[in-house]
Amino acid sequence: MSEFKVPRSIWEEGDAVAVLDQTLLPHRRATAHLTTLAEAAHAIRSMQVRGAPLIGVTAAYGVALAMGRDPSDGGLAAACATLAATRPTAVNLHWALERMRRVLAPLAETERTAAAWTEARAIAAEDEAANRAIGRHGLELITALAAEKRRALTIATHCNAGSLATVTRGTALAPIYAAAEAGIAVHVLVSETRPRNQGLLTAWELGEAGVPFTLIVDNAAGHLMARGGVDLVMVGADRIAANGDTANKVGTYLKALAARAHGVPFYVVAPSTTIDWQCLAGTAIPIEERAAEEVRTVCGLAPDGTPARVAIAPEVVAAANPAFDVTPAALISAIVCERGVAPPGELGRLFPEQPIPTPPLPLKGRESAA
Amino acid sequence: MSEFKVPRSIWEEGDAVAVLDQTLLPHRRATAHLTTLAEAAHAIRSMQVRGAPLIGVTAAYGVALAMGRDPSDGGLAAACATLAATRPTAVNLHWALERMRRVLAPLAETERTAAAWTEARAIAAEDEAANRAIGRHGLELITALAAEKRRALTIATHCNAGSLATVTRGTALAPIYAAAEAGIAVHVLVSETRPRNQGLLTAWELGEAGVPFTLIVDNAAGHLMARGGVDLVMVGADRIAANGDTANKVGTYLKALAARAHGVPFYVVAPSTTIDWQCLAGTAIPIEERAAEEVRTVCGLAPDGTPARVAIAPEVVAAANPAFDVTPAALISAIVCERGVAPPGELGRLFPEQPIPTPPLPLKGRESAA
Repeated sequence: MSEFKVPRSIWEEGDAVAVLDQTLLPHRRATAHLTTLAEAAHAIRSMQVRGAPLIGVTAAYGVALAMGRDPSDGGLAAACATLAATRPTAVNLHWALERMRRVLAPLAETERTAAAWTEARAIAAEDEAANRAIGRHGLELITALAAEKRRALTIATHCNAGSLATVTRGTALAPIYAAAEAGIAVHVLVSETRPRNQGLLTAWELGEAGVPFTLIVDNAAGHLMARGGVDLVMVGADRIAANGDTANKVGTYLKALAARAHGVPFYVVAPSTTIDWQCLAGTAIPIEERAAEEVRTVCGLAPDGTPARVAIAPEVVAAANPAFDVTPAALISAIVCERGVAPPGELGRLFPEQPIPTPPLPLKGRESAA
Repeated sequence: MSEFKVPRSIWEEGDAVAVLDQTLLPHRRATAHLTTLAEAAHAIRSMQVRGAPLIGVTAAYGVALAMGRDPSDGGLAAACATLAATRPTAVNLHWALERMRRVLAPLAETERTAAAWTEARAIAAEDEAANRAIGRHGLELITALAAEKRRALTIATHCNAGSLATVTRGTALAPIYAAAEAGIAVHVLVSETRPRNQGLLTAWELGEAGVPFTLIVDNAAGHLMARGGVDLVMVGADRIAANGDTANKVGTYLKALAARAHGVPFYVVAPSTTIDWQCLAGTAIPIEERAAEEVRTVCGLAPDGTPARVAIAPEVVAAANPAFDVTPAALISAIVCERGVAPPGELGRLFPEQPIPTPPLPLKGRESAA
């Protein structure tokens, strides 16, 4: 087994934090160097970095950059507030900032800069370690299926749950990289993922790593599954409810329906930080409605060779843009996380320390029935 | 009931045939005037006109334009050959050319020009009449559901099966126009329909007619159905097998799966010329694989304001591009055509004159079993 050249999304370069500028991908590879709090905040806000785990790591490094200039209590509070305001809905962002604040607040000002870098590095290292563990667990599923099919496997994915959404190796793509490195022949079916086309980020990083893939429009997944062209599906998650219902990038649910119709195993692959134990079922997950402009435009390549959003529909056209959908647990073969693999209904088995809240008692004894 | 301003795709203007130039829609409304065989052939080839019924009508008018210059036997044969070569897979094109040839061949050269215009007009008039009949039958379904729901109905569609695919009023959109004209409150959910974004043509013509609509990305249909946001689905068809299995624009099948999962009625709305009685089941329908370039690009608005295909993925990216998928009859509530409405399994009831071929006997008595 030899390790593939899987891209890294964030690393240190001297006193700077370097990130791949994802606003230019897949058209151009460029590195942005972050040296100040303002640059770190801008990188998150402008989506030079994206993906919940990577946003958290970038924010942690942003605090470290801020401490180098102003390690006072006021400086720490201002850094956390600035970074928290960049993407108000990303859970990992707040988790990472709270962790940095808890570590740094008790320290003397002179100790804070070094401690901040240490903690940011730890968060980044833990992300990579979790993804490698996810990769190992997912690899077992792929190995078993490859042994059964005795041919190259085609694995469909959606959106980008890869290196570019994390420090490296990704979540849903981690088992795929592990399989390729183990010498198992895999081919990835990448769906475009309108409206923001994160499938092209997946295509880019698979290309960098040398894993073969084919790009399709989102509409084509059902046809390909019907004609036997997909062996399994692996997708990431934005939030997993305690019962296993999973919110992920819009379009995931349609793939799950087609997978079920054709007996294709459908895996949700995500770190345990994605599980919301307080959320009992998918119906309780709020679905973000994003700007209509995303539907009316697409990120294309301008004539001068730079990526730019191009109009595909006139501005007067009304558009709805739900960013996520919920795949019911019943359509999910298993959830793969750093602790292992479990059917969605038995997720608690992997987390015995986790008290799952009891559903509230059904309302009864209303006036009319009293 | 007052008739809405539903666009017309083709009409006569003096000695010319005028068509809406669909390569410029939805960004700009422009008319192309066809005065020669070459211009008619170019209009079909370059997709200034598209949609199987409209291609057929345009080809018929193209023969009429050709007869004005050269009504000889050679001229007729050359016109038919030139037009047939424009879009080799469109069935209606060949049907219309064969009909023109049959009418014109027995006539004297001096009679051919007038007869060609008469026949082309007849084909156009029959298309509109069929669409109006489809509209009336589909309206009954909408009226019944509106009476049951007692609120405005949201009707989802896919691709463009509207005026722009026919002479006027369309197939899947015909019942929607009829409902709007009858004062039934309808709202249309239009899916983008990657890779060629024909949903934007649907948005354009609904906007022209004043029928309210919302544009969504193809990925969003499942989520909206799950949250109760769709009352029924109406789509067109490219080929309907004798058993009711239906090939339509890729992505239709995913919508049908979601509709079934949430109890949303799913109607295929198409003229009877779309039914292939010789084709017993959907598995026998060949699915056209189109150029990968369509997946790597999208039709956007260039900075100078003209529509142009814009790169969204690098040229090296491998892509698969099946243009259609097959929705099994079991997922179709009913098929609506100009003869009426029938469940897919009882389509023959509307066509008693149509002998449905008997399935071939299963092969038996092979050597090994003899």
